[in-house]
Amino acid sequence: MAPVVTAFEESPDRGQGLARDMPVRWALEEVGQPYEVRRVSFSAMKESEHRALQPFGQIPTYQDGDLVLFESGAIVLHIAENHVGLLPDDADARARAIMWMFAAIGTVEPPIVQREFSHYLERDTSWHEERLPLMENHIRSCLEDLSARLGECDWLDGTFSAGDLLMVQVLRRLKGTGLLEVFSNLSAYVSRGEARPAFKRAFDAQLPADFGKTQTSILQEQ
Amino acid sequence: MAPVVTAFEESPDRGQGLARDMPVRWALEEVGQPYEVRRVSFSAMKESEHRALQPFGQIPTYQDGDLVLFESGAIVLHIAENHVGLLPDDADARARAIMWMFAAIGTVEPPIVQREFSHYLERDTSWHEERLPLMENHIRSCLEDLSARLGECDWLDGTFSAGDLLMVQVLRRLKGTGLLEVFSNLSAYVSRGEARPAFKRAFDAQLPADFGKTQTSILQEQ
Repeated sequence: MAPVVTAFEESPDRGQGLARDMPVRWALEEVGQPYEVRRVSFSAMKESEHRALQPFGQIPTYQDGDLVLFESGAIVLHIAENHVGLLPDDADARARAIMWMFAAIGTVEPPIVQREFSHYLERDTSWHEERLPLMENHIRSCLEDLSARLGECDWLDGTFSAGDLLMVQVLRRLKGTGLLEVFSNLSAYVSRGEARPAFKRAFDAQLPADFGKTQTSILQEQ
Repeated sequence: MAPVVTAFEESPDRGQGLARDMPVRWALEEVGQPYEVRRVSFSAMKESEHRALQPFGQIPTYQDGDLVLFESGAIVLHIAENHVGLLPDDADARARAIMWMFAAIGTVEPPIVQREFSHYLERDTSWHEERLPLMENHIRSCLEDLSARLGECDWLDGTFSAGDLLMVQVLRRLKGTGLLEVFSNLSAYVSRGEARPAFKRAFDAQLPADFGKTQTSILQEQ
């Protein structure tokens, strides 16, 4: 039985691959593990049946036999630990790759997600415009540090790892904001991640079934 | 050689044990691994010498021989993987304990830290008072979900694990805000964590050297 991953029935990003099933799909593609997807509606996500799998009423979940996991970072780590290809063999390099997973989720992502929340939930408030530079300064400061550490390397620590997978995925949220583009090495790093065949397969697989149709109807709306 | 952990020279919380060296100290105490502490000033944290260890200019770092790690979650996981006592033996239970580590850092902590940032950096802004309920609703919603999942259990998944260690540490940030106290099972969960001998040893060890003196001078100031 292939593991089952849950994803949004309709992703709010309309196919940009920013929902949190994307890093899980990408990891599964990197290691060549087939998987099934069960799409869940927003209302079903909040029901007790789904909350038994995911107490915070979110996606993704990962079910493999009796094991049920949530938290995309934990799922990616579980996949990486049980397959070859996403963590180095050397013990110290392995610990550092896991460190970059935590850095992506614990340090780099929160200010980026805060900016998104603010965009969606506080756009009409009196303070939104004034707060935006504060949030963007925080993001910029993180990116500056990350850019300095990455330097001219292809990946954060030697070969591509689960740490790069999560970091690239986090940085992808910034595309089009102008914040990432200032750091040419980080932009190139994201492109390098997106150019991986496994990324492309995962990205294509997460597109809505009616993707072409949706795009057309968006164009018609405009 | 004992591993070396970096901590604030002067913790902004004046000894409440909320700085991120605390979960690392706690983990080391749980597994009985002696360690050394090197305290770093705010200015030294931003210098290139420290940034070579911690690219974001923060504490803690963890040095053990040639291995240098940062990100408290990654350090706790590294300690848990290399000692007995913080992760279950059963593979599925182990994956779930790690899942709770990611849930603490990726889901529960960000809204809590956002509220703190706002308190420190936006207290004097026109919007602070109006935004506070939005932030607190987000925290409350997370706590509600977590409280429902914990139920009447002592720990999140069977015996105490690194997942509980990080979750308790994250929830401790809410003490005194009134947000945690509403959920009596979560309050009891935090108390249960703080009652562990390893927690107490770590807490005492992180107190400033002049703790008694500082307290006295704070009282005198009031």
